[in-house]
Amino acid sequence: MRVSRFPLFTVKEVPADAEVISHQLMLRAGLIRRLAAGIYTWLPLGLRVLRKVEAVVREEMDRAGALELLMPAVQPAELWHESGRWQKYGPELLRIVDRHQRDFCFGPTHEEVITELFRREIKSYKQLPVNFYQIQTKFRDEVRPRYGVMRAREFLMKDAYSFHLDQASLQEGYQAMYDAYTRIFTRLGLKFRAVLADSGSIGGNRSQEFHVLADSGEDTIAFSTGSDYAANVELAEALFPSSERSLPSEALTRVSTPGVKTIADLCAFLNLPIARTVKAIVVEGVDSQPVLLLIRGDHELNTIKAEKLPQIKTPLTFASPDAIRAAFGAGPGSLGPVGFGGPIIADRTVARMADMAMGANADDWHLTGVNFGRDCPEPEVADLRNVIEGDPSPDDRGTLAIARGIEVGHVFQLGQKYSAAMNAVVLGENGQPATVTMGCYGIGVSRVVAAAIEQNHDKRGIIWPAAMAPFQVALLPLGAARSTSVRETAEAVYQELLTAGMDVLLDDRAARPGVMFADMELIGIPHRLVIGDRNLAAGQLEYRGRCDSDSTLVGRTDIVEWLRQRLITGQGGSI
Amino acid sequence: MRVSRFPLFTVKEVPADAEVISHQLMLRAGLIRRLAAGIYTWLPLGLRVLRKVEAVVREEMDRAGALELLMPAVQPAELWHESGRWQKYGPELLRIVDRHQRDFCFGPTHEEVITELFRREIKSYKQLPVNFYQIQTKFRDEVRPRYGVMRAREFLMKDAYSFHLDQASLQEGYQAMYDAYTRIFTRLGLKFRAVLADSGSIGGNRSQEFHVLADSGEDTIAFSTGSDYAANVELAEALFPSSERSLPSEALTRVSTPGVKTIADLCAFLNLPIARTVKAIVVEGVDSQPVLLLIRGDHELNTIKAEKLPQIKTPLTFASPDAIRAAFGAGPGSLGPVGFGGPIIADRTVARMADMAMGANADDWHLTGVNFGRDCPEPEVADLRNVIEGDPSPDDRGTLAIARGIEVGHVFQLGQKYSAAMNAVVLGENGQPATVTMGCYGIGVSRVVAAAIEQNHDKRGIIWPAAMAPFQVALLPLGAARSTSVRETAEAVYQELLTAGMDVLLDDRAARPGVMFADMELIGIPHRLVIGDRNLAAGQLEYRGRCDSDSTLVGRTDIVEWLRQRLITGQGGSI
Repeated sequence: MRVSRFPLFTVKEVPADAEVISHQLMLRAGLIRRLAAGIYTWLPLGLRVLRKVEAVVREEMDRAGALELLMPAVQPAELWHESGRWQKYGPELLRIVDRHQRDFCFGPTHEEVITELFRREIKSYKQLPVNFYQIQTKFRDEVRPRYGVMRAREFLMKDAYSFHLDQASLQEGYQAMYDAYTRIFTRLGLKFRAVLADSGSIGGNRSQEFHVLADSGEDTIAFSTGSDYAANVELAEALFPSSERSLPSEALTRVSTPGVKTIADLCAFLNLPIARTVKAIVVEGVDSQPVLLLIRGDHELNTIKAEKLPQIKTPLTFASPDAIRAAFGAGPGSLGPVGFGGPIIADRTVARMADMAMGANADDWHLTGVNFGRDCPEPEVADLRNVIEGDPSPDDRGTLAIARGIEVGHVFQLGQKYSAAMNAVVLGENGQPATVTMGCYGIGVSRVVAAAIEQNHDKRGIIWPAAMAPFQVALLPLGAARSTSVRETAEAVYQELLTAGMDVLLDDRAARPGVMFADMELIGIPHRLVIGDRNLAAGQLEYRGRCDSDSTLVGRTDIVEWLRQRLITGQGGSI
Repeated sequence: MRVSRFPLFTVKEVPADAEVISHQLMLRAGLIRRLAAGIYTWLPLGLRVLRKVEAVVREEMDRAGALELLMPAVQPAELWHESGRWQKYGPELLRIVDRHQRDFCFGPTHEEVITELFRREIKSYKQLPVNFYQIQTKFRDEVRPRYGVMRAREFLMKDAYSFHLDQASLQEGYQAMYDAYTRIFTRLGLKFRAVLADSGSIGGNRSQEFHVLADSGEDTIAFSTGSDYAANVELAEALFPSSERSLPSEALTRVSTPGVKTIADLCAFLNLPIARTVKAIVVEGVDSQPVLLLIRGDHELNTIKAEKLPQIKTPLTFASPDAIRAAFGAGPGSLGPVGFGGPIIADRTVARMADMAMGANADDWHLTGVNFGRDCPEPEVADLRNVIEGDPSPDDRGTLAIARGIEVGHVFQLGQKYSAAMNAVVLGENGQPATVTMGCYGIGVSRVVAAAIEQNHDKRGIIWPAAMAPFQVALLPLGAARSTSVRETAEAVYQELLTAGMDVLLDDRAARPGVMFADMELIGIPHRLVIGDRNLAAGQLEYRGRCDSDSTLVGRTDIVEWLRQRLITGQGGSI
């Protein structure tokens, strides 16, 4: 393609209203333009990237045996009433009334529609399992759309739905999708993790999210350096420390600590390492009486884990200052287990600590040398905290690293939520009707593009992974206006590369070199070839990968083979 | 693809609510399923066809230099207010209110959005001309959606918009799109005509519609057998007859015609050929006084042509029975020019007639031997009628044939309707701002599929043109369950054909032969290969094209080359 026939809509200035780097770069590189809040047009360059993602997704879904179809965007309300979601979905569901005053919505997801199709078309267990997918425009009326296509209202999604006779078949189908997703994100050249996740509002049993790792990600995930274990940090299990509790070596000592309210204050005041301190947190128990939770000073309470404990009231409720004072005789900042008669639950790490520092249940007093069993009763023990970097992996293989991630895919075991509500039944092997079991599997196709940029960019612009690059090679003739040989060589090389099957963008604008370099770096073309008079006189072109720190001179006649090698290995092009 | 992994959703019964053959066959062949009125899911087999159409459209649009982008489906009302269409478009525009009570619509077309994009991005005449297109889901809230995807509410459309500095450039761009459309429909293997059309409500100057010819078409078009002239029958010019008017040969005679009200009655009563009779039609003139229109007995008044005459009131209004009796002294059925003092306009054909039979302006009386100039004044003369089969072509090359057509594409010269309303201005060559001139170009991608079926089917099912067939070859092993050699040969041939790059559907269901034959004919696969024990013993397979009346035995080892030839020539596969 020639730039003269494929205009670039690049912009130098950083757009004022774009908060995250992918949004800024997608606007600056001319990939997208905003039409309304959370609603974007994909410009030609952006659409090329989007289509490349789409193609990889489609190939791997097909390879996994899923059947592509195309469901309507506009869905009748009746189906959503059947599933019960017309009420439950809330204002994110974009509701529409047609000219005959019938209710519809712009589909944010298609469980209802596919279940309706299934129950009409599939009659026998012999036709199972089956997996239908589509790549289609969705709309979710986000209350605060932001970050460009990362959290847009209208977006492109691959959604798949599988139907099974039983749980074993569902697990097989789920695994096939898990494997397909792994291939997809691997082929797209992204660093990602499959993360154990809460299944949220879509309901069902097991689910995993696929996260692209990027510092700007909205989710925090913990993953093992020694296995493929990964989980949302809130869900990752914190194991017991490997070492047993030491024997008490200090005497229980009451210390006056005027003005000391926080753990940081306490460490400074006592000149103690933070890992020797314990935080006391008071929540309401099932009987609304105070329950004392103990967490190591440098750890964080995990409210999801705490809420799941049978002793604790749902939803998790922190005790009021009055209730705390009534139960402990002191305010928050000076609390501890010594002398407290109510239930005490210690985090697993705290349960292995000795000679701890903590509050004395008297304002402005703390204790050091606290030991369970000796100074207060042995507490109940539970996993109460968020994992941190360096914790052992819950699968006991390697240690945990913490990273931020952007969710780009999700695999669910839905179970019978929709099939039961909507009566999706087949004739079972035993001749009896059997309600089918479902899985659903989504990839945010447009979000993948933004996530790839969050993960792969530098100060000059985007650095596309090879599989997503809108063009593989940028061909830049310098001073073509005055040099016949530059012009002719550029044209000849362009044709040779096209013939070799490469996706080439020839910058035939006769722009200044600086403009051409900046544009090609901004839009992230992996391989750059510069044709200039001086090198050409020596029979050479100048090659530079988007991530190379230096250029390489390559013989004119070797250039096709040189590039072919680079495209195969990916060397130079991507991070 | 194997049928065991690509289920066919074929249906034997003709669906009760499907009126036209394409709708029936699309349901029966398992291409689509209805979700709601005018809203359809494309099943896997149908989607394959849709994607093949899409691919041809995309290739030819790209070849014509148009730039693909993707605009949002959901559009803000503000832009439609700017163009004035928020009010004008009427209830076909599906209006949406979002959670913040802002007005949007589900885009039925994208003139506003593309003009908004253009005015923000394109600043100079140097960037012109430019043509943007997309292939995208649209919604038009038809009051009575029908005929399946032929007149659906949600549908897939290719829409393109070109921007030009002047009319000459627009005409060039328009011609390029006309040529691209001609290539598209030719490649798709459709019999079609580019038809001069009224530009209707989208506004602008010149426009042509591309019609697929089919007896069931909603539009009637006239086209020349000797040139590429074609027009909606309402717009085709009826030329003067080639022969001059004969001299009067009969005396004016008043005939009592009791009960004769129609031209058919009159011909029967007088035993006259219909071409000797003249119909009198009375409409209101610009001054609301009666104007008498004269049309040959076997011709039809063309109200569009009549309404365009300066003497006639707009909109065309037929005179009331009272006004007619006041002006003519008789009621409809006995009217004529003899004795009428008001304006008379004769169709060009009538103007060349002599010795005519027509009403006598007295109830139950007619005249024969009427001649202009002798019995009544010479009338004004105009083209007032619809053309009929056999009329000379308006371009004087060949004669007209009449056919029915299905509109599948439309090319418009929009002019400045949107660019002026929305201030789409570039810096002109002279340094002054210049309002751009636009063209727009649509193809109903999903409708093309239905139109192709309307044109190409028989009583057994669909007959796909080669370029649209979901699979090229159907491979049917007979009795595979009990014959190892059939099974193994089928598998081997399947692999050979795939290796040769063919799109093959292997029916591995072990169904009865009749079921397999019926399914493959219903879904319209162009080439069928049957593998059976008896022929196989003689080293042969049985080939049959979808349109062949007989099968041919082909040597096992020749089969790939045989099919390759058939695929190249299209022989046997399509009509």
